[in-house]
Amino acid sequence: MRPLRGLIMPNPGLLRVKRFNSGSSTNPAMMFPCLDKMERVSEGLRTTTVGTQGQNEPVYGKVSSGFEIFKSNRPFYTDYGGVLPNFQIAYETWGTLNENKSNAILIHTGLSASSHAHSTEANQQPGWWEKFIGPNNVCLDTNKWFLICTNVLGGCYGSTGPSSLDPADGLPYATRFPMLSVHDMVRAQKRLIKEHFGIEKLYASLGSSMGGMQSLSYAQQFPNDVNKVVSVSACARSHPSSIATRHAQRQVLMADPNWNRGFYYPTATEPNKIPPHVGMKLAREIATVTYRSGPEWESRFGTERLDDDRSPVLCPDFLIETYLDHQGEKFSLEYDANSFLYISKTMDLFDMSLSHVERSIRRREKAQELYESGKLNKVEDPLVDKDSGKKKHRTTTVEQAYEDLKRGCKPLLNNEVLVVGVKSDGLMPCWQQREIYSLLEGETNPNVTHVELQESESYFGHDTFLLDLEHIGRSIGQFLCK
Amino acid sequence: MRPLRGLIMPNPGLLRVKRFNSGSSTNPAMMFPCLDKMERVSEGLRTTTVGTQGQNEPVYGKVSSGFEIFKSNRPFYTDYGGVLPNFQIAYETWGTLNENKSNAILIHTGLSASSHAHSTEANQQPGWWEKFIGPNNVCLDTNKWFLICTNVLGGCYGSTGPSSLDPADGLPYATRFPMLSVHDMVRAQKRLIKEHFGIEKLYASLGSSMGGMQSLSYAQQFPNDVNKVVSVSACARSHPSSIATRHAQRQVLMADPNWNRGFYYPTATEPNKIPPHVGMKLAREIATVTYRSGPEWESRFGTERLDDDRSPVLCPDFLIETYLDHQGEKFSLEYDANSFLYISKTMDLFDMSLSHVERSIRRREKAQELYESGKLNKVEDPLVDKDSGKKKHRTTTVEQAYEDLKRGCKPLLNNEVLVVGVKSDGLMPCWQQREIYSLLEGETNPNVTHVELQESESYFGHDTFLLDLEHIGRSIGQFLCK
Repeated sequence: MRPLRGLIMPNPGLLRVKRFNSGSSTNPAMMFPCLDKMERVSEGLRTTTVGTQGQNEPVYGKVSSGFEIFKSNRPFYTDYGGVLPNFQIAYETWGTLNENKSNAILIHTGLSASSHAHSTEANQQPGWWEKFIGPNNVCLDTNKWFLICTNVLGGCYGSTGPSSLDPADGLPYATRFPMLSVHDMVRAQKRLIKEHFGIEKLYASLGSSMGGMQSLSYAQQFPNDVNKVVSVSACARSHPSSIATRHAQRQVLMADPNWNRGFYYPTATEPNKIPPHVGMKLAREIATVTYRSGPEWESRFGTERLDDDRSPVLCPDFLIETYLDHQGEKFSLEYDANSFLYISKTMDLFDMSLSHVERSIRRREKAQELYESGKLNKVEDPLVDKDSGKKKHRTTTVEQAYEDLKRGCKPLLNNEVLVVGVKSDGLMPCWQQREIYSLLEGETNPNVTHVELQESESYFGHDTFLLDLEHIGRSIGQFLCK
Repeated sequence: MRPLRGLIMPNPGLLRVKRFNSGSSTNPAMMFPCLDKMERVSEGLRTTTVGTQGQNEPVYGKVSSGFEIFKSNRPFYTDYGGVLPNFQIAYETWGTLNENKSNAILIHTGLSASSHAHSTEANQQPGWWEKFIGPNNVCLDTNKWFLICTNVLGGCYGSTGPSSLDPADGLPYATRFPMLSVHDMVRAQKRLIKEHFGIEKLYASLGSSMGGMQSLSYAQQFPNDVNKVVSVSACARSHPSSIATRHAQRQVLMADPNWNRGFYYPTATEPNKIPPHVGMKLAREIATVTYRSGPEWESRFGTERLDDDRSPVLCPDFLIETYLDHQGEKFSLEYDANSFLYISKTMDLFDMSLSHVERSIRRREKAQELYESGKLNKVEDPLVDKDSGKKKHRTTTVEQAYEDLKRGCKPLLNNEVLVVGVKSDGLMPCWQQREIYSLLEGETNPNVTHVELQESESYFGHDTFLLDLEHIGRSIGQFLCK
């Protein structure tokens, strides 16, 4: 059944421009307009002259304006033993900081968002949380609060990330960028809050998804420097299912030959390098499956195809496929691929367990020691030296891991915390928000408020936090004012 | 923040053999042992001489022995308007057909399984349902039943599929193979049952996942030629969420340059072509996320990493990642990529709605007319001619679609049907089994039995049907004997 050898095959080059239907096959050959399109995009990116504002300029530049920059020139040691000799954080603000600096709310973003949560004079494009912010808004009232939103460390919208230059040699960090943690992102923000704004205590630390992780991390690391904490559709520790789906996204992106192990930025000697736009598109399609929900798709798309009269094809064909294809394509040149990889991994690594926090402190101290003695970049990664593959199962019990997590959450017990979960969320399922509630001893701790949106209230899945002003926005507004 | 131009980059070739840690970067560069490994696999496949039984022989050959072949030389018209001038079906049997041929059970497989459901004398390897079959087995008792299992049409384990030769020109069909449906697979099996075995009426049609779809389809198309029907973890019509996740798998595979639009089979002129093993590996990793469940992974892997003392890497690092990596790698050369694409798509297209069935009949008639007049391979695919992109939302209501589905299920109302669902199944969720129950008027129809496994009974997700003899196996055994 696999008599594949010794045969002369049709020239596949020909198949790309014309269907193989010259009369020699039984059935017509399939066409692949989606692959044709990707090839055209690559061609367009490759043939644009370097130095001009051309197509090989990632379009994420479009939201990369109108922000302020905070620069820190002291070394920043990371949780996994790396260092940034200096770094910068892009940020935007809304409202006015009051005299005693007590009305500041730090808004943390999800994986791919910029500091542009809301339109500003400098950048009038709608922000990613446009309808949740404004004068007298039910969620974030800019007459009352001074709102700050940053682009996270590791990002590509103005903050230091893998596409930034390594000061040691003036070349882009690429995959020489140190691995980050959510806690690192928060400590970088803390410098902005303290050293730039002179704010000792935030009124609130607030975010959704990865932003909700940051929000919790701020209170875990600086419990006395923040009053209220809002965490929407986040968790206290990632779950293997979420790690699995992000792993798939990263591996798909890394398999794109244009990713080139992170070194895809065009250079003088290789001006026609192009970013891994196909890998980014595919990664985003996989992600989108986890951001939205089945019932929403059933009602929008059902199982209808673009055209029932034509034979099904392997390129997008069902309405749901064209939707995913569009979501992937939109994102594929908007975001730096290395930023995506690093930040996706920080979400996997997020863990508020005490042992985790203590290990990070030790690693940061070690990094400082190595960096100051000029040896940091010579550290051997034991990955290829050890046969770690022998470990196949967890070595701690579920109960031990939970106790560890509970000890790590202790610093938050005196903060006022709002935890919001959404029943239709498959990525950070509502049981993870209930877990936070329980870790913070919600049943006996009056500081903790838990809101759970039923399926009848939102069928938008994980993305609900971007869409639902009525339930999520209003809950946040009430919590901040109480 | 994107100062990427005019810079001399390190030679990425160097990075592949040695980490970029010559002292010129701040932090050590990351290593990519997983990509190194993929490159070695490609190299191994490429350098093997054609004609020898070498590494570029897909290893799916290993389960491709010990089966029987049924050949059909009459043209087979497919639901989407194609034809197979002839075809063959690989099958295996267990037990003995009784004199009046009334004890035959047809076992339908899931997407990737071969006809080897259980070990035989000719092939003593354990089958994919080894513990569910045997003398006095609680599920399928070979002392009582005559069991038949086939490799589906479109597969690569002995049945005609995309890797088979097109009789029109003696070249592999590749993506000139006609698009298939689950109903097509079943009509091909029907010829085996009737023309080879002379069986007029099956005792039962039985399967899980895609096998459950086939099982229902057999009864829909030939309600009088089957007595009992068992459908485990299947559905009456695919859901957009399942389509979305299979779409992602297919797009990832199709993006592998080695896939080459389906024409990757080595030839005399291009002997060093290699199969898209990276794309297959990635597709399988994405699929695995949908086959298993979170609670199982939490208990097996938790969020433990291979080695907490080393810096996290983008290659597999968490235990769950190494598990997925292993699952993907194992599958990557076991199965033909084109078979995977075609069969994955048939699952998306599965739909028992009456309008769907009627449309298929019209298309088959049209295909026959075109084929007999020698015009079939000249049919224009309207895909690139029409601006189908304008359709963005479903045009029928959820209620209309349900009524259509219900009308399509009418032929089964007189069959005895067992429907089994699993609460932890995320791919074919238990509500889809409840839907089948309701479509068959289970509440008032005594012929229909519905079993639902609670999370306490199985946390293995969609794969439960492969693992759970106690609940699933026993339920089937009892249903068959009642």
